Amino acid sequence: MNATMRSLSYLIALATLPVILSSTTTLAQDDKTNAHSNVGKSEAKYEGAPTAIDPSAAKTLTPPAAPPITPEEFEKAKRIFFERCAGCHGVLRKGATGKPLTPDITIPRGTEYLKVFINYGSPLGMPNWGTSGALTPEEVDLMARYIQQEPPQPPEYGMKDMKATWKVIVPPEQRPTKKMNNYNIDNIFAVTLRDAGQVALIDGDSKKIIGIIKTGYAVHISRASASGRYLFSIGRDAKIDLIDLWMEKPSPVAEIKVGLEARSVETSKYKGWEDKYAIAGTYWPPQYVIMNGDTLEPLKIVSTRGMTVDTQEYHPEPRVAAIVASHEHPEFIVNVKETGHILLVNYEDLSNLQVKTIDAALFLHDGGWDSTKRYFLTAANKSNKVAVVDSKEGKLAALVEVGSTPHPGRGANFIDPKYGPVWATSDLGDENISVIGTDPEKHPDHAWKVVRTLKGQGGGSLFVKTHPQSKNLYVDTALNPDEKISQSVAVFNIDDLDKGYEVLPIAEWANVGEGPKRVVHPEYNKAGDEVWFSVWNGKEQKSAIVIVDDKTRKLKQVINDPRIITPTGKFNVYNTVHDIY
Amino acid sequence: MNATMRSLSYLIALATLPVILSSTTTLAQDDKTNAHSNVGKSEAKYEGAPTAIDPSAAKTLTPPAAPPITPEEFEKAKRIFFERCAGCHGVLRKGATGKPLTPDITIPRGTEYLKVFINYGSPLGMPNWGTSGALTPEEVDLMARYIQQEPPQPPEYGMKDMKATWKVIVPPEQRPTKKMNNYNIDNIFAVTLRDAGQVALIDGDSKKIIGIIKTGYAVHISRASASGRYLFSIGRDAKIDLIDLWMEKPSPVAEIKVGLEARSVETSKYKGWEDKYAIAGTYWPPQYVIMNGDTLEPLKIVSTRGMTVDTQEYHPEPRVAAIVASHEHPEFIVNVKETGHILLVNYEDLSNLQVKTIDAALFLHDGGWDSTKRYFLTAANKSNKVAVVDSKEGKLAALVEVGSTPHPGRGANFIDPKYGPVWATSDLGDENISVIGTDPEKHPDHAWKVVRTLKGQGGGSLFVKTHPQSKNLYVDTALNPDEKISQSVAVFNIDDLDKGYEVLPIAEWANVGEGPKRVVHPEYNKAGDEVWFSVWNGKEQKSAIVIVDDKTRKLKQVINDPRIITPTGKFNVYNTVHDIY
Repeated sequence: MNATMRSLSYLIALATLPVILSSTTTLAQDDKTNAHSNVGKSEAKYEGAPTAIDPSAAKTLTPPAAPPITPEEFEKAKRIFFERCAGCHGVLRKGATGKPLTPDITIPRGTEYLKVFINYGSPLGMPNWGTSGALTPEEVDLMARYIQQEPPQPPEYGMKDMKATWKVIVPPEQRPTKKMNNYNIDNIFAVTLRDAGQVALIDGDSKKIIGIIKTGYAVHISRASASGRYLFSIGRDAKIDLIDLWMEKPSPVAEIKVGLEARSVETSKYKGWEDKYAIAGTYWPPQYVIMNGDTLEPLKIVSTRGMTVDTQEYHPEPRVAAIVASHEHPEFIVNVKETGHILLVNYEDLSNLQVKTIDAALFLHDGGWDSTKRYFLTAANKSNKVAVVDSKEGKLAALVEVGSTPHPGRGANFIDPKYGPVWATSDLGDENISVIGTDPEKHPDHAWKVVRTLKGQGGGSLFVKTHPQSKNLYVDTALNPDEKISQSVAVFNIDDLDKGYEVLPIAEWANVGEGPKRVVHPEYNKAGDEVWFSVWNGKEQKSAIVIVDDKTRKLKQVINDPRIITPTGKFNVYNTVHDIY
Repeated sequence: MNATMRSLSYLIALATLPVILSSTTTLAQDDKTNAHSNVGKSEAKYEGAPTAIDPSAAKTLTPPAAPPITPEEFEKAKRIFFERCAGCHGVLRKGATGKPLTPDITIPRGTEYLKVFINYGSPLGMPNWGTSGALTPEEVDLMARYIQQEPPQPPEYGMKDMKATWKVIVPPEQRPTKKMNNYNIDNIFAVTLRDAGQVALIDGDSKKIIGIIKTGYAVHISRASASGRYLFSIGRDAKIDLIDLWMEKPSPVAEIKVGLEARSVETSKYKGWEDKYAIAGTYWPPQYVIMNGDTLEPLKIVSTRGMTVDTQEYHPEPRVAAIVASHEHPEFIVNVKETGHILLVNYEDLSNLQVKTIDAALFLHDGGWDSTKRYFLTAANKSNKVAVVDSKEGKLAALVEVGSTPHPGRGANFIDPKYGPVWATSDLGDENISVIGTDPEKHPDHAWKVVRTLKGQGGGSLFVKTHPQSKNLYVDTALNPDEKISQSVAVFNIDDLDKGYEVLPIAEWANVGEGPKRVVHPEYNKAGDEVWFSVWNGKEQKSAIVIVDDKTRKLKQVINDPRIITPTGKFNVYNTVHDIY
């Protein structure tokens, strides 16, 4: 089992859960046994009414009753935790998609109990790190001891740190003043080659690879600037590359590392502010940074640490998930995962920065615009809700109950024959596709309600997609444990949704041989008459991109260049610039 | 030497400094000797370019090389630190008015070196805790060892904690519907009785004590609601008392504890929002809370943790200093000390909370309105600046260089015969009174410039005051080490400022016998024809309030009721409601 497959196993397990427990559920039910043990709590909780002169309320320094661990072991375990565990459990182990793992919870369980969990995993989504071979028995023992220690806090990362990594490779004044190549830039696809840490630029007209660009570790997404000239890619290591598509050979012109772990980048799109600013959000430290759009010069860093939306308790690690640029105001819309707040960050005046904090729901993930680009619909995935932001009025329009752990990507907009304009999301946790009315003016009865729940092939869906020129709605199921399902996509006819779906055997069409061959992330070309799918195989195996003729739903072409290693997200420049999905 | 005198000694030393070092100065100059020691740093700093998969950047758990301390000693030292040291050094010991005291700084100095500092103090403002008798030799040794340990983090304090302390003593529906007493509420003075933890309500007409109300520890200020009906007092222990002045016997009707340490409370004043909300800012945790104005029900808590305005590095303890209510918008204006940000918190929609963060300067303290109530002038005291906020436009109007450690209280507005409308502040660190032009429309050349620097009696000034009906400008020097100066006030004639000041021997007039008898905080009555001064003596000694006839500058009356124990701030209801100063 290779690394890609192993890292998938967690998500597969997650996706197949019939019920995903709330992240606030602790590892076991007998919390009361631990109620009076403050030892090793990362924050002693206030009880009663301590005063400023009653410092007994402050945390004791008495060492936690954790099992022994040598400094060398600690360092090794810390590294494993960052690589394998932090994405779900959080670097401070407060829990998010995974459960909290602070010493007050882990110490009472004890090393042997924890080893069983780490070794075998659990039906609630924990991967079987031991039996899968990802960790040796010694490493399982090490991790069981490690998570009983106080979580080490990673360093902060401020302006000095960012500036130290910031590099302008080609200054703006040395860049072309017009497009110097013959590519149809609007139809270029930026394809994430995840495990290679690269982005492939593919000419959507000729299907030829324009170039392969070395980027950050495990590139997450690419976004095009408002003009379409610049492309921003961000890695999970928080490295951003700015690529100039006007150059004869499109290449990076600037780079920066904005933190230790990241997921999101976006650029200013409001009229008059096109290409002016970029913004990136980080998982660690929990903050976002606004940069110059053409140089990535970091200008303004803002922390997201604060109170949760539900209980108004302080959270030390509210990670920044999706960010989109408003079309209604000069604003970025920033999802803060652990606090459940959606921020409207106005970029008109960075020295007098105006931010509106919209109370939404835990834990915010990703989302997209309705067809009018006034309403931003975003998943609060562990709340099983979609939050709707009215970006014009700057407030929450609705919280919509959907299926289990919605994962819309950017969602899919189409005209439902019965309910008018709608936006759809699929779920990680079940086979549902929730179709939500988005037209409060002409279809007020259906607005912000689930008007239909389609049944797809199964859970483990990451993305749905359609296009204004299309009558098809595609639903991937990339993380479904059944190979037949994960290697194919369902496609619905928008005009006859009750009819059910057709299955397209995309991986089979790719003909790449052995491997998991997960089919992920449908993306349209500019014209809206082709859909591209990634056939995401292991790093050492053959991957491919499969292009389907949208009208006939037949195979049109396979891009199986050996440089296409572990493709995941694909971003068509025109559709990304114009938020068409 | 009693407790009051001892606690004053620090401030006295501070006030007499010719040059007050910036708080970022470390205890000694040889920082390089410590550059490679991460041991015990509260946050290991990032150097180079760690990635999310390079957890070696995270803090090591290796125990700091601090001297031994028993758990009992640790608890005792923690208490002493909270009581004596945290106000200046910060609970996380990052430094503010006092210097940073994190283990990376203290450990290389060693116990003996630190003991000398603690014992004898320093000319840079550190009190002589040992030689003054405040701490025993054993306690000095203990504190020297304690500050080499990792600073214990006090607990967070969220909604659940606040709700647990919140008490509505008389619900709004059971309160009077009209004023039930014959007091002239407009002219009531709320007088802080600091060491008694009480507020005295004094009838400004009869000079009789209406009542003495038990409040929080070391009450800091009182503020009247926009209608003048309610009075809010806040203690340093973050306890707020809400007093209803309409009751036959004005009494507390609600209370809450909003944190562990606090300084500021304010109420909504914008047209249509009078008395609706209250806000309190805390030193720990670093946050503010918006409450119902008539019940103190906590509604919205917002953290202030974030990046500093200068270097954009993360600060874990940005304390909330002064808060004022805007007259131009439904906003509170919140000074965040350690980050140097001024927040405009719009209270129109708490679920979609809009906050503008104005970049100002470190470390923000207190301030007040210009005479038009459009511009908020506030001291960034360790930057020796006054920041001017245009509350109408919602942005910084200017940063004005003033003297050493300005401490305006709310400042003083008057018409300068030469420069037109001005606002004045005195300094803690020198004898200067800076007079700043505040009329950009009719006197644009003088606006936001120091038009005059008056020379007062000396440093250690806390408050200046005048009144629209007065031609006098009073300047206290309560923290000056010279008894003659600290026990008197200087008064300038506004129409002849060049003439210098007359000295009024307020403490002598009080005739209260032995003690430090510091004269502090001039406050006018409603009519503006009397000025009240606190003669602040030791807790076991006689204090008094001295009332001066403003026209003649002669003694009018002494309030020397034995219940007037350690009076400091006095807040006339009318002047407080209408921001007249």
